[in-house]
Amino acid sequence: MDSSNYYCVIMAGGAGTRFWPVSRTSCPKQFLDIAGTGKTFLRYTFERFAKIIPEENILVVTTARYVDLVKEQLPELLPQNLLAEPYGRDTAPCIAYATYTLLKRNPKATMTVSPADHLIMDEDKFRKTMLDALEYASKTDVLMTLGIRPLKPDSNYGYIQATGGKAAFDKEEPMPVKTFTEKPDPALAKVFIDSGEFFWNAGIFAWNAETIKNELEKYLPEITRLFTGWENVLGTPVEKEFIERVYADCIKISIDYGVMEKTDRAWIYPARFGWADIGNWEALYDHYEDKDNHGNAFISGERLSDGNRNLLVYSKKKDKLMAIKGLENFMVIDTDDVLLICPKENRQFKDFVAGIAMPDFEDFR
Amino acid sequence: MDSSNYYCVIMAGGAGTRFWPVSRTSCPKQFLDIAGTGKTFLRYTFERFAKIIPEENILVVTTARYVDLVKEQLPELLPQNLLAEPYGRDTAPCIAYATYTLLKRNPKATMTVSPADHLIMDEDKFRKTMLDALEYASKTDVLMTLGIRPLKPDSNYGYIQATGGKAAFDKEEPMPVKTFTEKPDPALAKVFIDSGEFFWNAGIFAWNAETIKNELEKYLPEITRLFTGWENVLGTPVEKEFIERVYADCIKISIDYGVMEKTDRAWIYPARFGWADIGNWEALYDHYEDKDNHGNAFISGERLSDGNRNLLVYSKKKDKLMAIKGLENFMVIDTDDVLLICPKENRQFKDFVAGIAMPDFEDFR
Repeated sequence: MDSSNYYCVIMAGGAGTRFWPVSRTSCPKQFLDIAGTGKTFLRYTFERFAKIIPEENILVVTTARYVDLVKEQLPELLPQNLLAEPYGRDTAPCIAYATYTLLKRNPKATMTVSPADHLIMDEDKFRKTMLDALEYASKTDVLMTLGIRPLKPDSNYGYIQATGGKAAFDKEEPMPVKTFTEKPDPALAKVFIDSGEFFWNAGIFAWNAETIKNELEKYLPEITRLFTGWENVLGTPVEKEFIERVYADCIKISIDYGVMEKTDRAWIYPARFGWADIGNWEALYDHYEDKDNHGNAFISGERLSDGNRNLLVYSKKKDKLMAIKGLENFMVIDTDDVLLICPKENRQFKDFVAGIAMPDFEDFR
Repeated sequence: MDSSNYYCVIMAGGAGTRFWPVSRTSCPKQFLDIAGTGKTFLRYTFERFAKIIPEENILVVTTARYVDLVKEQLPELLPQNLLAEPYGRDTAPCIAYATYTLLKRNPKATMTVSPADHLIMDEDKFRKTMLDALEYASKTDVLMTLGIRPLKPDSNYGYIQATGGKAAFDKEEPMPVKTFTEKPDPALAKVFIDSGEFFWNAGIFAWNAETIKNELEKYLPEITRLFTGWENVLGTPVEKEFIERVYADCIKISIDYGVMEKTDRAWIYPARFGWADIGNWEALYDHYEDKDNHGNAFISGERLSDGNRNLLVYSKKKDKLMAIKGLENFMVIDTDDVLLICPKENRQFKDFVAGIAMPDFEDFR
């Protein structure tokens, strides 16, 4: 396999604080080891792609405030492969910036675009799927997206209906997309699941740089016009100034709303590598596999537990003794400056912390 | 009033960890601000006595490992007034050491001996009582102890029965002691309370140095013989070496068991200044006055509370946000290296932490 035309763009700009108080505006989820695996999400993502794509072809796009975090966590990342947005404008502008950058370097580039903060369980399977998807995309002009077999109705995910109905659901080969629906309401999500024809949208794409450029020009000309004619500036000392001007004028929109729902080139590659976009503490608890017999997940911190049930315990300081007795269905999250003790259910967490005004907590969603 | 012959001996050697994880072997209760008042117990005790006794007449006895803590918290303490025991042998040897030291300086010394870790609510009343007790002791050869009107049967305290029965109970003048009982079992404590004739022993004494020396010689000659004939060594460069030898040979015994229960010179001064020897977290909760409408005592730490009842919350870091929702009858105690969440009842706390093996937790009682 010749992978010299393969590129990876890791999107690491999100500023979510849904894992407050561990995640903050100053250090969101992708830079943390929330799942207690020993590496940050970003580090895992980088290493995962580095096994199938030449390291010098891996780019990271982040916002300016996180540039130092990226450098610290990925010391091997080439300086020219770290693209800094002045601030986040969702995924479409981010992908446009990366696409124009790659096209200048290699007009034959086939690229995958991936979030930095997803869990992948079966890395071998992931690599095989990813390489298949890249190869298929390189030979065609499709916009390939990885589809995950859904486990439950979840209105936090995007949904993809493949062509071919139920019969296609069990295949493991690329298929054209029939419909593309970003974050349906819970009732619709249930309809999707019950139909047996829908996949979750993993937000991991594969396409030729030329193809996505053409589709961006077609569906989001208000973004591409900001780049057109200025390609030569990319990679030069005035790039930063140019990008600041671009973003000042740029709309905020996701690639899903802006392109994938509209294009007739969207294809899906059904994936089975075990995937989760763990969006909050409750979801982390649900996915955490190393619980004790009473359902307690002591993810980080030294454990001293007596008479507890279904706890989620996380200490930012790994050697802190978490001595807990007699709690049930709670989460206990400890950082240097905040201790959170709250029922584990995400709704209760959100209600409780919604009103918190902290300097480093500006954009809780 | 001439207070030049008045001395105070503050006993600050205890190593208890009943306020674990805040109190440790390396920093027991007297050096902490457990009650969240803004000063440590030792500091309060020193300042309280400094208002009635010349500062140069205030001594602190502690164990060698705490000498630096005392110096740090009481920078004005004269170096010769800091007596260091090599290790704790309970109160009788401590008092003997201080008594021989004072007698060498001033044979007419009248001294009060006080623990370093008690709460006194009414400081004005305390000063008046203390001065009365010192004056009475200075003119007689009694061993005066302050008696507190008990609030409930509590087998953690010593009990004093005054002469005169119930009729004497309401008086505020010195009376001879009839019986002296250190830490009765709960049933006996109840009998004492019901009788209406018993006081709690505050462990705060007043006597002439000469008087206590004589009583020590009478009832604890195995201690006094270690000092007799060596008085000239006290206050010289070889004192440390001498005291190490004394303590190596010295029995471990309290002044209550060793002298007060046996002597016929014991008197009681009924005191009404609001007193508590807060021995554990549950007792601290019971005494804490600044609870919210739902009985929550956020003693230290920034408070974010929702739907809690009867909590005790303590953060060693005062500006840490303690965000707690939906807990009832728990204590939440946070330090740098330990988070404790446990039902508030002392029995549950003791059971839970009894088995903890930490380097700084060697002598949990």
